[in-house]
Amino acid sequence: MSTPMYAALDIGGTKIAGALVDEAGSVVRRVELPTPARESEARLASTLDAVIDALAVEPAWPAVRGLGIASAGPVDTAAGTVSPVNIPAWRQFPLVESVRSHHALPGRIEPVLLGDAVAVAAAEHWRGAAQGVDHALCMVVSTGVGGGYVLGGRLYPGPSGNAGHIGHISVDLDGPPCACGGRGCLEAYASGTAIARHAQRAGWAPPRGVPATAAAVAASAREGDERALAAYDRSARALAAAIAGSATLLEIEVAVIGGGVAQAGDTLFTPLRRHLKAYATLDFARRVEVRPAALAQDAGLVGAASAARRRAAVAGAAS
Amino acid sequence: MSTPMYAALDIGGTKIAGALVDEAGSVVRRVELPTPARESEARLASTLDAVIDALAVEPAWPAVRGLGIASAGPVDTAAGTVSPVNIPAWRQFPLVESVRSHHALPGRIEPVLLGDAVAVAAAEHWRGAAQGVDHALCMVVSTGVGGGYVLGGRLYPGPSGNAGHIGHISVDLDGPPCACGGRGCLEAYASGTAIARHAQRAGWAPPRGVPATAAAVAASAREGDERALAAYDRSARALAAAIAGSATLLEIEVAVIGGGVAQAGDTLFTPLRRHLKAYATLDFARRVEVRPAALAQDAGLVGAASAARRRAAVAGAAS
Repeated sequence: MSTPMYAALDIGGTKIAGALVDEAGSVVRRVELPTPARESEARLASTLDAVIDALAVEPAWPAVRGLGIASAGPVDTAAGTVSPVNIPAWRQFPLVESVRSHHALPGRIEPVLLGDAVAVAAAEHWRGAAQGVDHALCMVVSTGVGGGYVLGGRLYPGPSGNAGHIGHISVDLDGPPCACGGRGCLEAYASGTAIARHAQRAGWAPPRGVPATAAAVAASAREGDERALAAYDRSARALAAAIAGSATLLEIEVAVIGGGVAQAGDTLFTPLRRHLKAYATLDFARRVEVRPAALAQDAGLVGAASAARRRAAVAGAAS
Repeated sequence: MSTPMYAALDIGGTKIAGALVDEAGSVVRRVELPTPARESEARLASTLDAVIDALAVEPAWPAVRGLGIASAGPVDTAAGTVSPVNIPAWRQFPLVESVRSHHALPGRIEPVLLGDAVAVAAAEHWRGAAQGVDHALCMVVSTGVGGGYVLGGRLYPGPSGNAGHIGHISVDLDGPPCACGGRGCLEAYASGTAIARHAQRAGWAPPRGVPATAAAVAASAREGDERALAAYDRSARALAAAIAGSATLLEIEVAVIGGGVAQAGDTLFTPLRRHLKAYATLDFARRVEVRPAALAQDAGLVGAASAARRRAAVAGAAS
């Protein structure tokens, strides 16, 4: 009998990726198509079908035991629908039903839907920086800020799959209005967009021909530019306050930070660890440790496969 | 055979209470002694023994199937120890062992330890305002601010029993230093102490002979005093930001507010519900509902009994 495989889909605003992932969490085949985000619902669905088609012709396809879908949010895992902010054509789109009805999918397989940041948490817990950690917060800090929890040794997606939306908690109740309608949201302090904006407001500018990104700010920070350092410090402080909040509320032992902003390395992590000491003060919260993510761009796929694997194990045990 | 009973202890800085609680969650017998908080560890332990003695002479005592202990924190439920801030004589005191070794306790009974705010959450979930709610935050807002979670239909105390310490999350990363060592903690905005202090700083004073408490501020607020209203509004806004954070992170459906400050009724709840709309903005978080606590001063005892009942059911199922 062939070794079990898990199929994974990762649906974002710019691309739809698919993969076959083995029992060890390694991506053995990967396909990708651009997301026709501004086109019709049907055109999007047929792009998704084409990604599944490309996986289904693989020799390993018959070994697939489960299928996981990581999607940009908001998602509603109870209803099986998604309404990704960056994919306007899909609103309450029945994604699970759409994938389930693909002709190549064996009838016994029930797709599992996860939000993309929750999928990253699943991946880091399965074979990344949160391996063996029973209480963890995994964050993606890039254009936006997202997150997912592991509680009591298991992924905690929440009843509709949206738990861990840490980018939109307020770290400053008098802070600036956020696009979400809230005020003082973490994302407005900590995201790559916020870092670049804050540095520019302080007078920083990227070298000629280089776009004003968080990566460009990080390069300036490494050269000692005070404005660039201050922008990362501000992000790190807000992240510290939010991570300390999760440690205080949920006894999180480890916070894993991934996404583009984490690529800044010590420029982010050194002030982050320093500020964390100032906000995580109660005995049980003080132990929280910050780690860079171990998995890169395929984390969503690996996490989706992880959830599919778990579902298959539960279904197998029940049958 | 007699109807099952549960014994409960509630240990605070001013009193040690004990109760026998029936299957319906009603307190059928209650005893109480003052906490000799500043005396020796042994004197404290013998006061605790005296409370158990008083329960053990009750005719219903032989029907006791489990014993729960709610204690002022910090607690360490994994170690079975407590180090209550307001009881200096007990530091890493082995409370579970101390109770287990009481001569009147049947050997088959393993005491269950909970933090006091977690016990309140257990009580409100069992027979209070969070009954039937699968994802809830229950808060105690009085001199301090504490809380406990129900997640996925069950109490979530966290690995050391300290989950839900919402009074010490930062709602303002640039806020004033807190006694815990943190900055901008919810407690410094929302507690009864903070309400009275804020009103006084704005020029409010209680009527002659009345102490300057949050209750006195509430009385002035009901008479239209702007400074008193502003103090409650500030508390309500900070509570709203923190509750919205829990709704955003954990998809909490209901937040139950108890404690002395909740006695202010609409003076607190009307601005709280208004501010909550401003901070809980994502679709899945917007549904969060605020409710006054249904149980009064015996909530800790009822919650301790609830945990004992659950433990007895699990033990019974396993045997």
